[in-house]
Amino acid sequence: MEPASREHLIEERRKHMLEQQQKLKATTSKIKHKIAVISGKGGVGKSTVSVNLAMAFASHGHSNRVGILDADIHGPSVPKILGLTGQRLQIGNQAIQPVLGPLGMKVVSMDFLLPEVEAPVIWRGPLKITAIRQFISDVVWGNLDILIIDLPPGTGDEPLSVVQFLPEMDGVVIVTIPSDVSQVVVKKAVTFARRLGIPIIGLIENMSGFICPHCGTKTDIFQSGGGRKVSEEMGIPFLGSIPIDQKVSENSDKGLPFIVADSASAASKAFMGIVKKIENFLKNREKQNSAASIA
Amino acid sequence: MEPASREHLIEERRKHMLEQQQKLKATTSKIKHKIAVISGKGGVGKSTVSVNLAMAFASHGHSNRVGILDADIHGPSVPKILGLTGQRLQIGNQAIQPVLGPLGMKVVSMDFLLPEVEAPVIWRGPLKITAIRQFISDVVWGNLDILIIDLPPGTGDEPLSVVQFLPEMDGVVIVTIPSDVSQVVVKKAVTFARRLGIPIIGLIENMSGFICPHCGTKTDIFQSGGGRKVSEEMGIPFLGSIPIDQKVSENSDKGLPFIVADSASAASKAFMGIVKKIENFLKNREKQNSAASIA
Repeated sequence: MEPASREHLIEERRKHMLEQQQKLKATTSKIKHKIAVISGKGGVGKSTVSVNLAMAFASHGHSNRVGILDADIHGPSVPKILGLTGQRLQIGNQAIQPVLGPLGMKVVSMDFLLPEVEAPVIWRGPLKITAIRQFISDVVWGNLDILIIDLPPGTGDEPLSVVQFLPEMDGVVIVTIPSDVSQVVVKKAVTFARRLGIPIIGLIENMSGFICPHCGTKTDIFQSGGGRKVSEEMGIPFLGSIPIDQKVSENSDKGLPFIVADSASAASKAFMGIVKKIENFLKNREKQNSAASIA
Repeated sequence: MEPASREHLIEERRKHMLEQQQKLKATTSKIKHKIAVISGKGGVGKSTVSVNLAMAFASHGHSNRVGILDADIHGPSVPKILGLTGQRLQIGNQAIQPVLGPLGMKVVSMDFLLPEVEAPVIWRGPLKITAIRQFISDVVWGNLDILIIDLPPGTGDEPLSVVQFLPEMDGVVIVTIPSDVSQVVVKKAVTFARRLGIPIIGLIENMSGFICPHCGTKTDIFQSGGGRKVSEEMGIPFLGSIPIDQKVSENSDKGLPFIVADSASAASKAFMGIVKKIENFLKNREKQNSAASIA
């Protein structure tokens, strides 16, 4: 290879990376708050929490200004829970139009790009990193009050990429179920957030006890109290417990956020208490930020 | 760089890769059967199924000849469920000694290498691929009748690597919970196995209905029948349903495989029915293989 040509390639590469960074900055600067929802183990209801959190914000005066990014490339669940299965992302002129969900929510998920829901995404890390970058920087998110990012379980390529592309993240909400087995893994998620310097908004204990609809007896199917215990041991805020409710699963299957479909249930009331704490966290962040900009 | 030196490096690299392949072959040729346990979504009880499957095989005449590889690098649960937390892998002379579990079971997990259970493994794909290769080829598995591989959810680096390093896999057992949301993701796992040409032993529906211990009323917390429905739609064998039982979670937290701790329960009986089908699958494979070698 000629030296001139090699330098030319390096220069092109440098320009391309700079453009990417500028594009990312331009998109994310219009999004006021960014929250990631993470877990240690999968299957703890992380996507259900993400969707209902987005729904709660949208209904609390932020309609048309809430986004939800489903960053689970292999196992996207957000479209199904929001009743958006089969919708497609519109792509043109290097810009991706998100799918519109309830209350003008902007939704992006790998599932909106697949030929059919059965199709697996058999991708190693580097491809996933590219997808996540594009899902953040190339999407026409517009002006948002909040972007909720639903991360897959684990501490690998997907969460690392989200943190890399959104270094100004407000914080993470951690979801667990009460069992000891889950506690072991959720502690890794707490340590992960700390090592990367992301604020921890707090921990939610999901699937906390089941009340038999027939006799009213409570059974702790996945134990109970594990979430509060982990919070105390790790020194992070405990946001609350959500009981097991078969209607939560039923409504998720129907594509209905449970806080809307069944707003009077114990699960919904518990969830709205958690939302209040997260809203307070964000308000305090805003105060701190405006105090910092005055000083 | 001098041409001679460059050729030397390429030759060294070629020799190294050949040695790795020979080592892998030498180790895996002494393992009669290899089964991977996969899921679409996480949190469906995949590790509980893996551990109890290993336990069932060990107690059916294969003690000291069963191995279990926990291939979930970010969220290893096998040590906790087997009561082996805090044990360490012994490493020396390029060989890794597995931890010994109940009935002489040989167990390998990332958790046996971490300084403490809270430590996350913040690794991108390439490091995980190397770890999985070493967990297969550098472990002194010895002569095994069966190796059970507990794979993390998704269709990324970890399952791809296991398939790459163990192309002669007998098949996969797929675990799901009944909800529609899980069905969407489990179909991706079925398609994944098919695309890679791995036989599908069948599908298990876990967490299928909860019977209140107080009044005996059954509640389908995560719906029911979804596992059988997916099996029919995708044309794969249905292995059975395991009901929700709070003792399964309790015993897993105590490090006791539930089929031993609570052998008379409905969950244990359902599980042993599933084991029988998997044993039959392997017997048929053996017959086919011996018929093929005679012919």
